[in-house]
Formats: sequence, structure tokens, C-alpha cells
Amino acid sequence: MPVYPLEARQEKNMRASLQPLMDLVADDLLSVNTTIVERMASRVSLIPELAGHIVASGGKRLRPMLTLAAARMCGYQGDQHIKLAAVVEFIHTATLLHDDVVDQSELRRGNSTANALWGNEASVLVGDFLFSRAFQMMVETGSTKVLGILANASAMIAEGEVLQLLTTNDTSTTEDAYLDVVAAKTAALFAATCRVSAVIANRGTDEEEALASYGRNLGIAFQFVDDVLDFAAQEADMGKSVGDDFREGKITLPVVLAFRRGSEDEQAFWRRTLEVGKQNGEDLERAIHLLHQHGALTDTLDRARHFGAIARDALAIFPPGPEKDIMLQVVDFCINRAH
Amino acid sequence: MPVYPLEARQEKNMRASLQPLMDLVADDLLSVNTTIVERMASRVSLIPELAGHIVASGGKRLRPMLTLAAARMCGYQGDQHIKLAAVVEFIHTATLLHDDVVDQSELRRGNSTANALWGNEASVLVGDFLFSRAFQMMVETGSTKVLGILANASAMIAEGEVLQLLTTNDTSTTEDAYLDVVAAKTAALFAATCRVSAVIANRGTDEEEALASYGRNLGIAFQFVDDVLDFAAQEADMGKSVGDDFREGKITLPVVLAFRRGSEDEQAFWRRTLEVGKQNGEDLERAIHLLHQHGALTDTLDRARHFGAIARDALAIFPPGPEKDIMLQVVDFCINRAH
Repeated sequence: MPVYPLEARQEKNMRASLQPLMDLVADDLLSVNTTIVERMASRVSLIPELAGHIVASGGKRLRPMLTLAAARMCGYQGDQHIKLAAVVEFIHTATLLHDDVVDQSELRRGNSTANALWGNEASVLVGDFLFSRAFQMMVETGSTKVLGILANASAMIAEGEVLQLLTTNDTSTTEDAYLDVVAAKTAALFAATCRVSAVIANRGTDEEEALASYGRNLGIAFQFVDDVLDFAAQEADMGKSVGDDFREGKITLPVVLAFRRGSEDEQAFWRRTLEVGKQNGEDLERAIHLLHQHGALTDTLDRARHFGAIARDALAIFPPGPEKDIMLQVVDFCINRAH
Repeated sequence: MPVYPLEARQEKNMRASLQPLMDLVADDLLSVNTTIVERMASRVSLIPELAGHIVASGGKRLRPMLTLAAARMCGYQGDQHIKLAAVVEFIHTATLLHDDVVDQSELRRGNSTANALWGNEASVLVGDFLFSRAFQMMVETGSTKVLGILANASAMIAEGEVLQLLTTNDTSTTEDAYLDVVAAKTAALFAATCRVSAVIANRGTDEEEALASYGRNLGIAFQFVDDVLDFAAQEADMGKSVGDDFREGKITLPVVLAFRRGSEDEQAFWRRTLEVGKQNGEDLERAIHLLHQHGALTDTLDRARHFGAIARDALAIFPPGPEKDIMLQVVDFCINRAH
């Protein structure tokens, strides 16, 4: 299968821009990892075994790093941010476990999924455990405000996942409807992830909402880029395989755009492959071809840049400083990882 | 299939003993039902649709009624008990939704399960939503103590469910191991259900722990009786079909007892039907016959009575009164519903 280069692939140097974030929070992140391992523990050994598999399977820990960096930017001096970063990763991990069951996925980042290895049953229940454990840890922080923020985010995620289930296989999904799904299933947790740092640092409502807006818009940009990568990533390069969303009949923004811009014949193609679910060996290649033909991938990246710009501007109320610079660079990383 | 009568079937008058509880909390329970309907609401209509199906499908609302009655017994005057009773029912319902996915059940109390009607995906996600919604509602009570109790219970339930998954199909499960499963997956929520009422009523640690012990022991008795009913209930009578656990290869206390007491030939029978999972039309009848032959059903009821007696004694520190009388009668109901 030919790999269609994205226009901006030449800006490869931008790929490195997560490094300053990693350097900034390196020590804290070690503590977070220790906390994660400690709090996954259970007398039921299958729980840490299964949870450890997914936690270890190569995520970037982007969400916990955001909590840590935002806490720094807010001048926070305590240690609650470590626990909250672990909480955020637990909620995210629980979501991934349930997602893989819902999508019947066999692979995640090139590794076998937990449901493929241990079965759907165990994945559902260990997801429940991690979710409950996350709430136990939040209770330990003693902040009902933090609890409220993360409980609201969790409910939004579940709503978003159900919404996505309803749009799966539905090629008539509009861009608005899709944005609605992404705002709930992805952006809500990013928003909460950043907002809680302002809360524990006792910053005012303005800073809290600025960080929530940063997280929310960054999350939308992140998801849109993810959607593009599903049609453009080189497997060895990104640890992400091409065409997963397509095979699962997921309607993502590139598809929404290409479908709306396509001829009747092309719309019939999308319906057959994504609604009826009849796919043959050539279909992914044709899909990628159509996405390029209609500029659907580059336009999805343009949309991502739009939300990235809002995320950047949301931080305007914070004074200049190295932490703020790094938070701004994260936006670039999230967008430019598509190159 | 012949119905083997249990010894004590003649005590039929005991069947009515839930009525005083229902009368005591009738008004509050109406408010709880209103709260449940209000808080299931979501802009994603599939959520209240699916959640409404399972909430409406004939449960006794035993757990919320216990929260309400315990609050009365503690002299509580506020209205938080309404919300907490709804929370407890949401957590219970989320557990049922995930349970039915794990067990691949098609029927619950004679109705089609949510997973049979809407698919596993929706059941997993709506369970997640109800669970998150429960935590949102707990946050509204403003009590981190209540949050801690219910977060701990939720983590225990998930651990218990994973434990049960590991004992399914394992005929070598011991009585101790089985009690461990029941204590976690069933009794933990009963304990929390009763304990939170003492917390909101600002009663001391002694009352709190007494109510937790009452709930925990009642929960164990309740589960043991449930196990017996799976082999003894008359379908039309109880809205519960005979042999569900058996068909799913679940190892429950009657089976643990009959297996340990059985001949080599009988143990081979249990291994074939429950471990290998090869069952034919006559097997359930033989299983019931063996359970009776070894007194496994009556002895399971004896064990249930033992825990019921502990539950009763746990309430000793509360002064006499009509509410306490009713809480004591609930124990009788839970045990005698097997007759």
C-alpha cells in the first residue's frame, strides 16, 4: 500500500517538541509511575496483571504529564498533583479497557489488547476496579471540588462513548455531531486533567477555566490528529496501525468530510465499507485515496490547528515563564505528530 | 422436572415479611424513584432508555429501602438519604449491567437483559455512565466520608467480580474462597448501603459499624439464599428461572458442598457439567437430585441463617423501636424467601 505523504511531513523537527514537557516533569512522573504501580495492587493478582499490561503498553502518559505541568505553572508546592496525575491515568486506562471491549479490538499500539489476552469479562471488571480505585484516591485528596470535576468528566466520557456507538457505521454523521462526540469522549478528560491542577493550587476561577479551556481544545486537536494518523501513520514509525478506525466502521472527521464532498459513487463506497461493513483488500487504499482527493486529511489537520490555537490563547492570562512555554509547545507536539 | 420441596416450605406466612419495610419507607421510596428517573436523564436518549429498562425490570429495591430504613432508625431528619438510596441503586444497576455482559446472560428476572436487547457495548458504557452519575450525586452530598465508603465498596465489588470470574468453572473452589467472593461482590454494597445512613445521621462509629455489620451479614445470607433459589425456585413464583447459575458454570455454595461430599462418580459429573461445560437435558435434574441427596441446599440455608443471626445481633446497640423491628424482619424475609 502506498503511503501518501502529508504536505507538512518535512517539518520533522517539530516531532521532538514533547521533550521539554518530559524534562520538566521527569521527577514527578517517576513518582506518578510508582503511585500507579502501588495503587493497582490487589489481593486478586489478575487485576494488577491485566492493568499493568495496558498501563505499560507504551502510552505517552500525556494526560498525567499535563496535570503535573499545569500544577507547576500554577506554582503548586504540595504533592497532591502526583496522586491526581495517577487518578487521571487510571480513568483513562479504565476507558481504554472498556473501549477495546466495545470495539472488539485485538491490537493497541502494536500490542495485544487486554481483552484479546484475558477476555472481555476481565477487561470490563478490571476497568471497573481502576475506575473505583481512582475515586478512592480522589477521596484521599479530601477535595470535593476535584471529585466533582472528575466525576463530571467521567459521566461525560461515558455519554460520549455511547454517542460514538450510535454514530458508528452511520455515514450521515455531521461534522457538528462528530465534534460533539469528541468533546465528550476525549476532550472532557483533557479539560479535567488540566483544571484540577488550578484547583489544588487554589488559583481563582479564571485560571481554572483557562486551564479547562486549554485542555478541552487541546483534546479536540489531539483527537482530530489521531483520526488523521489512522489513515496516514506508518506502522513502524508511530506504533499505530493504519486503518483500525476504518475496519471498525468508525466515522471520524476525515470520513465525514470526504463523504460530504464525494460523488454518489463515492458515497456508495463509504456506505458499503462503513455502514454495511463489506470491505475487501483494496478498500482501505481507495479510502485513503479519496481522503486525499478531497483534502479531507489536510482539512482535518486545519481544524485541529484551529482548536490548537484556542488552546494556546486560553493560557494568555498566565504570566510568561518556562512552564507556560512548555504547555504551549505541547499544542505544537499534538498537532505536528501527524507529520 | 420435579420440584423438590425444601423442608421449611410450610412457613409460607414468612413470605410477607418485606411488607412492613415497604410500608415504613413508602413515601421516601417514591422520592427515590423520582430521583432515579431524573438523574438517569441524558441528552443521549439511549442512556435513560437502557438504564430505565433494567431499573424498571422488577427489582425489589431492597438496597435503597435499607438505606431509607436505616436512616429512620438513626433518627435522621434531612433529605440526603433519598439521594443516597438512589446512588446505591445506580451502583447496583451498573453492576448488574456489567454482570450480564460478563455472564452473557439473556434473561434477568424473566425479562430480556439489556445486553440481549442493545448489545454488550451499550451495556458496558451505560453501566459506566450510571457509575459516574452515582459519584456525581455523592459529590452533591458534600460528604467525603460517604464518598469514601461507597468508593471502597465499589472497588471491593469489582475485586469480588474478578474473583468470581476466576472461580467460575472451578469445582475445586473451597467454601472459604466462595465466602470471600460473596463478601466482596454482594455483601460490600449491602454494608455500605446501611453504613452511610449512620454517617449522614451523624451517629458515632459504633452505630456506623453496627449498621455495616448488619448489612454485610445480611448480604451474605441474601446471596446464599439466592444460590439456593437458583436450584429451587418455581419460575412463575419468583420471577427467577431455575438453573441459570448451573448453565453458566457458576460455582455457588450448594455446589461447593455437594462436590466435596460427593463420590468420585459424582465429582466427575460436576466437573463435566461445570468445568468442561458439557451439559445435556437431564443434567440439571441430576444436579438438583445430588444437592438434595447431600443436604447441600438445606445446609446452605443453615449457613444463611447463621449470617442472618449475626446481622440481627449487630443491631443490639440500637434501642427498641418499630424501625428496628422492621430491620430485624428484613433478615427473616431474606432467608425465608427461599420457602
